[in-house]
Amino acid sequence: MIFIMKKINTISRCAVAYRNDVLNDKSLSPLYHSYVLIISKNPGISQDELAKELCINKSTVARGVASLEEKGFVERKTDDNDKRILRVYPSEKMLEVLPNIRKAIREWNKYLTDDIDETEVEIFQSVLERISNKAKLYMESREEGEI
Amino acid sequence: MIFIMKKINTISRCAVAYRNDVLNDKSLSPLYHSYVLIISKNPGISQDELAKELCINKSTVARGVASLEEKGFVERKTDDNDKRILRVYPSEKMLEVLPNIRKAIREWNKYLTDDIDETEVEIFQSVLERISNKAKLYMESREEGEI
Repeated sequence: MIFIMKKINTISRCAVAYRNDVLNDKSLSPLYHSYVLIISKNPGISQDELAKELCINKSTVARGVASLEEKGFVERKTDDNDKRILRVYPSEKMLEVLPNIRKAIREWNKYLTDDIDETEVEIFQSVLERISNKAKLYMESREEGEI
Repeated sequence: MIFIMKKINTISRCAVAYRNDVLNDKSLSPLYHSYVLIISKNPGISQDELAKELCINKSTVARGVASLEEKGFVERKTDDNDKRILRVYPSEKMLEVLPNIRKAIREWNKYLTDDIDETEVEIFQSVLERISNKAKLYMESREEGEI
């Protein structure tokens, strides 16, 4: 059996430090860039869909989105047809930071993988995709009450 | 260029959900298992060393350790020779949860990688290690003020 989580978590945490350095804000949540990418791409996404997309629980998303709203990055509106659904829209401020976040992600990816041989990279990506799908499958079966 | 961070973050976040399900505590911090593993293995580790090991900043570690102390998982003591150094020791309670955490990590690793061909796994691990080292290298050069 292989153990991969320590390295996966290291890469993920160092990425947070890198982004916060580049975006020059030490207080950004580890989820900040994911919120910006997903909400900008899906204006009006519901909080529940956002939780699913991020693989985190609904209460964490609710807190995260409330904090983004306080800082003027998003607006929340109740769905016209179903009052239980809260929809999240990016503000001008969020759309303004988007290019910088995309640039930071591109550069971090480049930094990490620049020295690695192309064939190895292909295999790595293919395995990473399968593992990531397996991880998401766990979340789905969990929601359906199977696990 | 390859984009790997979305998948890496997905795997990392789903692992948090899995561990919290298995350990039957929805309120555990994403860093909880890492704290338990590192502090149990290194009794008396300083908060600064812990921050370095975890690739997170010192104030986040200080908050995390304070919360663990409140819950009775660790004790903090000032270093005998240098009053600026805070050392962290695992409590009995932490050592008691350790086997369950190790089991959860083993089972999650097995779940993620069980279907993957051995040769692919070897290449995956080798690339993952190089990428993780590159990520840590960023943290080190950052500390030395090079970046």
